[in-house]
Amino acid sequence: MRPYNFSAGPAALPEPVLRQAAEEMLDWHGCGMGVMEMSHRGKEFISICEDAEHTLRELLAVPSNVRILFMQGGGLGENAIVPMNLSRGGAVDVVVTGSWSQKSLKEAGRYADARAAASNEASGHTELPAPATWALRDEAAYVHVCSNETIHGVEMHTLPDLAALGSRAPLVVDCSSHILSRPIDWSRVGLAFAGAQKNIGPAGLTLVFVRDDLLGHALPICPSAFDYSVVAANGSMYNTPPTYGIYMAGLVFHWVKAQGGVAEMDRRAAEKAALLYGYLDDNGGFYRNPVAPGARSRMNVPFFLADERLNEAFLTGAREAGLLQLKGHKSVGGMRASIYNAMPLSGVQALVNHLQDFARRHG
Amino acid sequence: MRPYNFSAGPAALPEPVLRQAAEEMLDWHGCGMGVMEMSHRGKEFISICEDAEHTLRELLAVPSNVRILFMQGGGLGENAIVPMNLSRGGAVDVVVTGSWSQKSLKEAGRYADARAAASNEASGHTELPAPATWALRDEAAYVHVCSNETIHGVEMHTLPDLAALGSRAPLVVDCSSHILSRPIDWSRVGLAFAGAQKNIGPAGLTLVFVRDDLLGHALPICPSAFDYSVVAANGSMYNTPPTYGIYMAGLVFHWVKAQGGVAEMDRRAAEKAALLYGYLDDNGGFYRNPVAPGARSRMNVPFFLADERLNEAFLTGAREAGLLQLKGHKSVGGMRASIYNAMPLSGVQALVNHLQDFARRHG
Repeated sequence: MRPYNFSAGPAALPEPVLRQAAEEMLDWHGCGMGVMEMSHRGKEFISICEDAEHTLRELLAVPSNVRILFMQGGGLGENAIVPMNLSRGGAVDVVVTGSWSQKSLKEAGRYADARAAASNEASGHTELPAPATWALRDEAAYVHVCSNETIHGVEMHTLPDLAALGSRAPLVVDCSSHILSRPIDWSRVGLAFAGAQKNIGPAGLTLVFVRDDLLGHALPICPSAFDYSVVAANGSMYNTPPTYGIYMAGLVFHWVKAQGGVAEMDRRAAEKAALLYGYLDDNGGFYRNPVAPGARSRMNVPFFLADERLNEAFLTGAREAGLLQLKGHKSVGGMRASIYNAMPLSGVQALVNHLQDFARRHG
Repeated sequence: MRPYNFSAGPAALPEPVLRQAAEEMLDWHGCGMGVMEMSHRGKEFISICEDAEHTLRELLAVPSNVRILFMQGGGLGENAIVPMNLSRGGAVDVVVTGSWSQKSLKEAGRYADARAAASNEASGHTELPAPATWALRDEAAYVHVCSNETIHGVEMHTLPDLAALGSRAPLVVDCSSHILSRPIDWSRVGLAFAGAQKNIGPAGLTLVFVRDDLLGHALPICPSAFDYSVVAANGSMYNTPPTYGIYMAGLVFHWVKAQGGVAEMDRRAAEKAALLYGYLDDNGGFYRNPVAPGARSRMNVPFFLADERLNEAFLTGAREAGLLQLKGHKSVGGMRASIYNAMPLSGVQALVNHLQDFARRHG
């Protein structure tokens, strides 16, 4: 058995997906070429790409007026690409809930009058500011949220209803690190984006979901390769797309579907999170998670040992127990367990067993 | 035996590289993770990335004042990223030799006063304008050339010596489709870039070589993720790099090295090109290549049947003979054989055999 890999991203992939990719590496479906060797304009790759898009659309019930784009540049790229396409140089409201939305706010400032509509910085990014308290501007071109903060482990369990808050601005959602772990309420979303390397597949592929009516407003300085309307008009083939990443993502989409779809991923995420947070909240103070219960991420679980001098021993013991990449992000410290779709319940149980065992030996 | 794949890109990879990738898919060097599943900040991936850079630097004898960056966005992305980083909003001279440099000229116009210093358009992009005829401006921030035009099959066999032409501007070279097929004279280069999907590896990885003194001049609207100085300062890890592409590229670099390095690739390229052009020039007029002999690409060989009604029959017969992806680019028509490093001499010989056989049967 392979070790359990808790990396925050690039992250563990389902083993059957890796096995299939290995088997098809030299010859995809008898065509005599591996997927990496195919022209993106040939019928083989076009069928792979169309199938990936179709399966993703089905999994997330993406409505027909929302385009799916396969792009490059990751979340940090999108922090610039979104305002270049949507801001029209006007006002942009950003809800700051952790490192990622903070970076989005800063980068949007290059292209627009970007302001924090709310911030949880005072709490150390451990609570979610209530939407009713957000200072939204009437003239905002869009409102940006990060619906799962990978570093701080804060998740929006429902997307805000901007219309109910009196705003007519489209909502932009960075959902990189929890996409496909729960349904998305598209009636509340104008644009969503996700780097693939957390819950989908290899780094270097970015998924963008954009409502038709938001296309066509890019600033003149927006590079053609990152202009959503150019990418959409060319079916994500304006420039050569990250073909192998799209193929791997397609394999993951089929794996999710075979497991029971997003509804089943949602159920498993709830089960895994309940198990891990349950122990972190009830272990006699040896470990703690600092995030407010209603704001806790089901994907990224930062936690701390009360005695941080034990951190190295904890990580060493974890590795010996086959539990990999548990070290926390350098900006936060401590530990972090990322338990994406590809992490089975047995992996979370193994982690809890190690947590208990380590606490017993060192408590 | 696998068929011979003449795709212009994404293109054939060396079979031993694909075999190794398949073998390591679930577990890289016993670490318990596949390469796609590793944190880019972990020691395993950092060693992969450093090794790839080191091997590439060795293969191309890249001097220490030239940084190697692993980026995303491909050649079309660089068409915007280069002027955002280097133009300072001033003058940019572009030598137009085919589709790719024409696109570079157009895109640079978003950020700078971009002009064609020369153009081979009147010849149908079949000749190289002599450097002595280029209209270079004293104030140009840089001069852009595409040293191998993938679509038109035109290659610069030596890079221009701008200093000898009286210019002090740095030379920017798009060498996407012939990188690693010949040495690069770095004394003539300020910046070079290459999409990996032609002669190196998977689509979605872009290599940028940039001289130290050209860093730090990005326009304020340059996205952080595409600011060379930001990427350089973070060792290509400002955003999550396309980790699997870097790994595959590293395997290809080691394969090139094991074959005898760039000098051996250079020798083989000359041999393969001589064989194919030799036949295309001497077959009784059944086939022809339109490019001026001194400007012919050793990587991308467009050719035409005198009777274009035979095109479909030619492609069908080629597929049956195990010769794939020979259809020409839609903007040029006809056929195109891309014979990158991964294409053995035996593949070119098989193509020539098919050319002869088809001409005999249909001539």
